[in-house]
Amino acid sequence: MPFPCPPAGAVVVAFVSQKRAETDDGYAEAAAAMEALAARQPGYLGFVAARGADGVGIALSFWQDDAAARAWRDQPDHSRIREQGRLIWYDRYALSVAAVERSYTWERPAE
Amino acid sequence: MPFPCPPAGAVVVAFVSQKRAETDDGYAEAAAAMEALAARQPGYLGFVAARGADGVGIALSFWQDDAAARAWRDQPDHSRIREQGRLIWYDRYALSVAAVERSYTWERPAE
Repeated sequence: MPFPCPPAGAVVVAFVSQKRAETDDGYAEAAAAMEALAARQPGYLGFVAARGADGVGIALSFWQDDAAARAWRDQPDHSRIREQGRLIWYDRYALSVAAVERSYTWERPAE
Repeated sequence: MPFPCPPAGAVVVAFVSQKRAETDDGYAEAAAAMEALAARQPGYLGFVAARGADGVGIALSFWQDDAAARAWRDQPDHSRIREQGRLIWYDRYALSVAAVERSYTWERPAE
């Protein structure tokens, strides 16, 4: 899957989180379900995520505009799963919403 | 280290990359050196990164304004190491520059 390359004017939501060491109950399933659900929302432009062995993860979701990003925030299943995150999965997180000014991609030329 | 929580008006640079499977030559050292160098630049507000077992990594750097983000892009050691990235370390990457509109953090209350 190509990495998202959102146009100027798109909105990026950057979610940085620290997983708790002691638990993984249902996390992978919930994350996959949320990714699939996000992709069906109006104004969805893309998603990419990474989590390292230290438990720090970053997820980027890209949206056509701020209204689409807010609608995803307020989506009931998404709100419910965020509550699960605070109850069970995360020690801490930070979230930034930002307006894309420019994007680039690069790919290794075929050898 | 607390996660960055940049104010409105800050600039976030989101770098998404796919590491090549076959090589790790000097990558960890270069990444650590760049993180330390970024932290000494004017207008630096913070940095966080994660890379999963599939080789997909996301690095977020936060800057006071667009001028600071561009100055970091043009920093000679940083430019040189980006060239190394294209020659050696990455199969592909995407980069977005975005203006922060709002940020939140959450931390698990002490039990």
